Amino acid sequence: MEERLKKQLAFILEADKSKQVFRQTYVSDGTRKENDAEHAWHLALMCVLLREYANEPVDLAKTMAMVLVHDLVEIDAGDTYAYDEAGNSTKRERELKAADRIFSLLPEDQGAYLRGLWEEFERADTPEARFALSLDKIQPVLLNDATGGRAWEEHGVRLSQILERNRKTPEGAEALWRYTEGLLRKNVSEGHIKDDREEKENG
Amino acid sequence: MEERLKKQLAFILEADKSKQVFRQTYVSDGTRKENDAEHAWHLALMCVLLREYANEPVDLAKTMAMVLVHDLVEIDAGDTYAYDEAGNSTKRERELKAADRIFSLLPEDQGAYLRGLWEEFERADTPEARFALSLDKIQPVLLNDATGGRAWEEHGVRLSQILERNRKTPEGAEALWRYTEGLLRKNVSEGHIKDDREEKENG
Repeated sequence: MEERLKKQLAFILEADKSKQVFRQTYVSDGTRKENDAEHAWHLALMCVLLREYANEPVDLAKTMAMVLVHDLVEIDAGDTYAYDEAGNSTKRERELKAADRIFSLLPEDQGAYLRGLWEEFERADTPEARFALSLDKIQPVLLNDATGGRAWEEHGVRLSQILERNRKTPEGAEALWRYTEGLLRKNVSEGHIKDDREEKENG
Repeated sequence: MEERLKKQLAFILEADKSKQVFRQTYVSDGTRKENDAEHAWHLALMCVLLREYANEPVDLAKTMAMVLVHDLVEIDAGDTYAYDEAGNSTKRERELKAADRIFSLLPEDQGAYLRGLWEEFERADTPEARFALSLDKIQPVLLNDATGGRAWEEHGVRLSQILERNRKTPEGAEALWRYTEGLLRKNVSEGHIKDDREEKENG
């Protein structure tokens, strides 16, 4: 047992590094950016409270475990900003390599389980993964809205980029996405998001 | 539905403030202290991976939800350091007031549910609460050990204080506590924790 526990604790300590992987989104008081561990905590809390809006019934414990580990690969691969095209072209390769290293710290059964959850999240081909993906996309919108669109403004994000990135968000939680669209419209009208759709329509 | 969702999202945004409630424990690289959101994320991950060591079978989703919210009251009440006697004498009163405000942001059913989880954690009178409490006590030992006992040294913590505070820790996860005792002994021998038991025995 001691050997097994040592592996589990080594992984738990390695996972601690998520607290130093910073995202582009600001925490709600705007004083600093959010890190992966905080983000995952927030998503897990959202799982508990917003499960009723999932399009399909989801296994709560599984969905929570999935969001808790969905960004662990960023310990090695770093956070790739949603609208960083160059970064996103190499993201999958960097993250696969990270997954090989990080999940193999665990006893084999648990490593395979967590890696499976991560892969499932990436494929978004189960009710749990679709719901988790929706929360992962909606949570930064809530924080961006709370901070006056700070991260959007800093990166000059355009509405078409956000909508393209959220093509699949309604598939996990249609009602939450409808509400989120309202927040996006508000931020467009307040000038925090560039509405390039009009430019295209008029251009 | 919109009214219900608004309350849920208001709570989710309020909970974000946990990311700015800092504890005395340092994150594993020692560069800064850990906040409540990160701590709760770490405990939830430990629930997933260490459940096999719980003394009694536990409901995983319930235990995870419990650890996710167990420190939310600190948004108002602040973090009270484990070995701050004056702070601990007023802690319960401050936290009850905070619970009244924070959980009432939610729709009534969910507010009652989360408040119930928090109260259950505080009473530690169910298998889930006993296991959650054990993890809550063991996680900072892992981080303190990883940082060369930094928080213990800063506060001049004595072994008798740690053992007194951990009287109930074995009740949730005996095997994890036995391992943790080994870490404590190591840190005593390395001089990071003052061994005042010897003083007492010899004095």
